[in-house]
Amino acid sequence: MILDIINKKRLGKELSYKELDYFFNGYLNGEIADYQMSSLLMAICINGMTDEEIFSLTKIFIDSGEVLDFYDIEGIKVDKHSTGGIGDKTTLIIAPIVASLGIPVIKMSGRGLGYTGGTIDKLESIPGFRVNLKDREIERQVKDIGIAITAQTRDLVPMDKVIYALRDVTATVSSIPLIASSIMSKKIASGADKIIIDVKYGNGALLRTKEEAKELSNIMIKIGEVYGREVRTLISDMNTPLGTCIGNALEVKEAIEVLKGKEDSNNLYDLCIELATEMVSMGKEISKEDAKKLVIDSIDTGKAYKKFEELVKYQDGDLRDIVVSNKTMKIRSNKAGVVKKINALEVGKLSLSLGSGKIKKTDRIDYSVGVKLNKLVGDSVKEGDILMTLYVKKDVYDINVNNIFEID
Amino acid sequence: MILDIINKKRLGKELSYKELDYFFNGYLNGEIADYQMSSLLMAICINGMTDEEIFSLTKIFIDSGEVLDFYDIEGIKVDKHSTGGIGDKTTLIIAPIVASLGIPVIKMSGRGLGYTGGTIDKLESIPGFRVNLKDREIERQVKDIGIAITAQTRDLVPMDKVIYALRDVTATVSSIPLIASSIMSKKIASGADKIIIDVKYGNGALLRTKEEAKELSNIMIKIGEVYGREVRTLISDMNTPLGTCIGNALEVKEAIEVLKGKEDSNNLYDLCIELATEMVSMGKEISKEDAKKLVIDSIDTGKAYKKFEELVKYQDGDLRDIVVSNKTMKIRSNKAGVVKKINALEVGKLSLSLGSGKIKKTDRIDYSVGVKLNKLVGDSVKEGDILMTLYVKKDVYDINVNNIFEID
Repeated sequence: MILDIINKKRLGKELSYKELDYFFNGYLNGEIADYQMSSLLMAICINGMTDEEIFSLTKIFIDSGEVLDFYDIEGIKVDKHSTGGIGDKTTLIIAPIVASLGIPVIKMSGRGLGYTGGTIDKLESIPGFRVNLKDREIERQVKDIGIAITAQTRDLVPMDKVIYALRDVTATVSSIPLIASSIMSKKIASGADKIIIDVKYGNGALLRTKEEAKELSNIMIKIGEVYGREVRTLISDMNTPLGTCIGNALEVKEAIEVLKGKEDSNNLYDLCIELATEMVSMGKEISKEDAKKLVIDSIDTGKAYKKFEELVKYQDGDLRDIVVSNKTMKIRSNKAGVVKKINALEVGKLSLSLGSGKIKKTDRIDYSVGVKLNKLVGDSVKEGDILMTLYVKKDVYDINVNNIFEID
Repeated sequence: MILDIINKKRLGKELSYKELDYFFNGYLNGEIADYQMSSLLMAICINGMTDEEIFSLTKIFIDSGEVLDFYDIEGIKVDKHSTGGIGDKTTLIIAPIVASLGIPVIKMSGRGLGYTGGTIDKLESIPGFRVNLKDREIERQVKDIGIAITAQTRDLVPMDKVIYALRDVTATVSSIPLIASSIMSKKIASGADKIIIDVKYGNGALLRTKEEAKELSNIMIKIGEVYGREVRTLISDMNTPLGTCIGNALEVKEAIEVLKGKEDSNNLYDLCIELATEMVSMGKEISKEDAKKLVIDSIDTGKAYKKFEELVKYQDGDLRDIVVSNKTMKIRSNKAGVVKKINALEVGKLSLSLGSGKIKKTDRIDYSVGVKLNKLVGDSVKEGDILMTLYVKKDVYDINVNNIFEID
């Protein structure tokens, strides 16, 4: 039976709900071994899955744990998800904007994966901030201040946790059917009514091409339909890092700047406005034009930043204590010209090597380190100009700036 | 590095010798986990390998253990291999024929795998027969009587043992590159000068189609060229069981009948003559016509059977003590007609279910059980005729004769 199922997918055939259920739950129960699951996962990566199979897998994932509802919270609950990128601190900006407009926001976020950071790690750079809220705490907090950001609870889609851990070490992460069922099962189980998903493509993202990002979008929208949840997607480029800062405390500080209305001419502000607009449009059932006005107004009047402060305080964080390392290295350009590209993947690797994330599971994150880009795509550069500033703790070697900045 | 290699094969790209060496030896050393190897194996199964990759893998397999030579044994050493099938007892017949004609035969054989039996298991149904010969014993025995059949020594291609064990439980067995490197590494490491390979296709074989069998043949011949070994192949059908008996003691008895010249009108005799002819033609460097005459003469004059008796005696077996169960079940036809097909796979499964092989690794083989086909393809059948006889030890249920015999 086990081998028949693997073999069927190996030959590119469709697996039934029963077969998938047997296999995935067999794995969760310990009846099917890691090496058998990874063999099936690789066959899925290469041969793909039909829509029907993806619906089945999503259901199996959801059914593996508890399903939240938060019926007691009034209003349309809108959730946001990003498929992950370098320098992506949008949740820290968008969630307070949306909440400041009266839409309840219950955001369950993740930790860093591979070269990409995670919202929960970023929030933990705020001393005292509690990231593990229980269901009842979430409910009370959202009733009180309209917003909560928390790590995913232990009982939500436990299947995803074990499968993701295996995918991470078997080169089976970037598979559209597996990504779609992983994301959508968590979004549906966490009780959102409407969901906006930021689907990223490029060298700093899980998916490399815009076509793949579109394909992932389409299937996630279809899964939403099956469960009666409106899903909107936004496809965004992740060949360039988002914003100017990469690294936990640095990113929180950058998010605060955006919330305070310091609109740098970079890709971060625009993406935040776009995503927040979609959420407000869904949550209030109004046009995008009207929603956008409310979003910008929330920043400009200080409502958004005030909501952020309220959130941090409610979860016991203290913004005054955020630490960015005072030991820095400035990386200067050895040529003149215009910045053509900033390689997101390489920036992610650099930040990780400074200690901003875990390379091995046993590593400890250093919240105070990271990279600040001093030049962005399109900027003019003179020889000797500072391209980026590294916030470091130890000495760092082998930094090849040519891998990151393309100047011509 | 580990993930980069898996990912490269996942995308269908060619892996270098260095990459394959790193991965496979890393697995052998315990640095790479089962679930990572099975992920790579599945990617190889689906995306294939170039000739260059298969040559690399074969070399890595060979280099993982000792390489035998047997320079002291005079004459061209000819080896024979079968990719495995249901009822395949050809080694027991061919090896004595070839040895009786003065060609040294050192045959390292395997045990049953999946639904197919193994020569070593069959020989163990002869009480006393020693199947684990040491290198020196093999050499002395071949010098004395010109023939030895033994289980593969522990040090020969240890890589193949661990990889095969993993393939067996991850549905990654039937892959041409993996089969070719597994077979050829063992043949080359065991010191054969020339090799004949019986490549089987059909529902009772690893490969299902004749085209796949041809592809496997071609790459094995090419590997032989790389190592300066003449390789000939014979492509044979394994949709129908070979001969009339399936099960260890039953198959030894059938082999003896063929060696004694009892030429049943079935596929076994013809295949044995064909394979032995190739081996004699290679070993004596004579034409196939001349070789075939010698082969048939060896059977007809009793030389082949005498050599078999000599082999069994030398390895301490006693032919008088072979036991076939005396408890039988006769399966009769419920319709009249002509036998169109006998499903090899189903016969293999049936024999296995009676106890002739291991389903779990902890099972014990019952050498005395098995299946004897009383009707063969092309035979006329009346209602109530015996189609097959099951030699059983315990009561057996759920035998659906219609799955095995197609009568019309």
